[in-house]
Amino acid sequence: MSAVSSSSPVVDPKGAYRDELIAAGLLISTGVDGIYGRSARFEQVVDALQDSITRMTTPDKPELMRFPPLLSRKDFLDSGYLKGFPHLAGTVHCFCGNEADHRRLLECVEEGKDWSDMQEAAEVVVTPAACYPIYPIVARRGPLPAEGLLVDVSSYCFRHEPSIDPCRMQMFRMRENVRIGTAEQVLAFREDWLKRGFAWVEKLELPVAIDLANDPFFGRAGKLMAVGQIDQQLKFEMLVPVTSEENPTACVSCNYHITHFSEIWPLRDQNGEMAHTSCVAFGIERITLALFRHHGFDIDSWPAGVRAELWP
Amino acid sequence: MSAVSSSSPVVDPKGAYRDELIAAGLLISTGVDGIYGRSARFEQVVDALQDSITRMTTPDKPELMRFPPLLSRKDFLDSGYLKGFPHLAGTVHCFCGNEADHRRLLECVEEGKDWSDMQEAAEVVVTPAACYPIYPIVARRGPLPAEGLLVDVSSYCFRHEPSIDPCRMQMFRMRENVRIGTAEQVLAFREDWLKRGFAWVEKLELPVAIDLANDPFFGRAGKLMAVGQIDQQLKFEMLVPVTSEENPTACVSCNYHITHFSEIWPLRDQNGEMAHTSCVAFGIERITLALFRHHGFDIDSWPAGVRAELWP
Repeated sequence: MSAVSSSSPVVDPKGAYRDELIAAGLLISTGVDGIYGRSARFEQVVDALQDSITRMTTPDKPELMRFPPLLSRKDFLDSGYLKGFPHLAGTVHCFCGNEADHRRLLECVEEGKDWSDMQEAAEVVVTPAACYPIYPIVARRGPLPAEGLLVDVSSYCFRHEPSIDPCRMQMFRMRENVRIGTAEQVLAFREDWLKRGFAWVEKLELPVAIDLANDPFFGRAGKLMAVGQIDQQLKFEMLVPVTSEENPTACVSCNYHITHFSEIWPLRDQNGEMAHTSCVAFGIERITLALFRHHGFDIDSWPAGVRAELWP
Repeated sequence: MSAVSSSSPVVDPKGAYRDELIAAGLLISTGVDGIYGRSARFEQVVDALQDSITRMTTPDKPELMRFPPLLSRKDFLDSGYLKGFPHLAGTVHCFCGNEADHRRLLECVEEGKDWSDMQEAAEVVVTPAACYPIYPIVARRGPLPAEGLLVDVSSYCFRHEPSIDPCRMQMFRMRENVRIGTAEQVLAFREDWLKRGFAWVEKLELPVAIDLANDPFFGRAGKLMAVGQIDQQLKFEMLVPVTSEENPTACVSCNYHITHFSEIWPLRDQNGEMAHTSCVAFGIERITLALFRHHGFDIDSWPAGVRAELWP
């Protein structure tokens, strides 16, 4: 037997972990990579993580805002997301025709033809990041108070990147705290969260490392933007190995946007200066998957310290 | 002064209630009718309603499934939703081009031209009703056990019907309990929920009436389907006046689908017969809006009985 034929079939560890999660009934297959149902046990951990984040952030008295996972198309276009991440966005389209159009639509569907050109762009897109809805809303309120603003926001977010890696879902929940204010306020917020976020992941007894990172910008121009983001140290990620030791998964990120959003929407501090913004973002599904990976599928047998943090 | 010029401007009570909710900070305008942010106080009621429904349904031991608000496009097409409700559906489209295509896309956006034909249909659509994902999943499991199945499901749902009525959102949360089994099991479930649902709304001290109803089918053929639905008494709604006394809002519905879903997906009972299905559906935002309408915007001053039901 040759060395090649005796080797076991190549199994992608990402796909293998997804299959384990589905076999254990934690995730439910829908037939689309990256779109999964969640079981009671999975959601029990999700709820506990959300509650744990709430307990951690409540002393900061954030203003809570919750949004459905659709964003105004106008705000989406204004945001410039299509410049950096056209490949990840999802726009929503609707049928606006009459009964004759409807018959043609059904014929196309019946015959397996493409019918996407019979759908018109709606006023909304699928939310790409939880914090996007808040900037135009805060800007409309006028100048910020002296202490700036802290917003707690959370929603399902969409990234069009079908993958067998359960850590790379197309639709997942992101919880963020967003700081809007002067450069000093915003940088202090990020410094603080680099420590707090790390300490929190450690309390969950997950192996974590912090690293500089960049967003997945599109194309060659995007490569330059990624380099600039690294050079300016704008994005830090808290990485936990889940489906790969070599490519650990970003579970929490701390991002400094400088004045990116106040150049788009008139976010101004009390002196009329362009506001700076920064956020800490928790990938709820990813942290959940990391917990199941490192502590096992049986929640009752998780380490006492982890259980105390999640179910105090 | 003529009678016409002296009359006050016609104010639509639906839009007026929405403006009150926004002015009170309960809802947050996004600039798109039917897409709103929710404040901490609004979500406090939403969470309490979800918990109250959970307490009510836990003794029935439903299997909990949660889905992101995107549905497999294949399951969506199979479901036949496009036949009955093409005008309400939202399909998700994505950019799949190269860098040259990307430049053209950005030019179109810059020049305000339509760029929807540069987006291709993705594998997903926005979920039209919370229960849609479960039928193909349950069918893949094989024949039902003798006792049938009860599923607790909830998600944000999309209906493309921009409206100034806050009770007619484009994106809202629907919580459902779905019964799958024999005709007897399923009809008994619906009979039971007609009583339990009504009693629950009464405990919330909302003025409620039950009426036969039909779904908003499209076009002239749809009118016939609506008549058939009424004739067969398939849909009952629990109606509460919120923005109109004449047209009260459906807050809870009890629906019998006969074998509609088992004709699409092979849902079979233990004897191999086509399974029947039925569901009770709670419109979470609508019930929340009804509570604010009838008990006021100050939760602390709500009637003791209502508070006891929501925060026991």
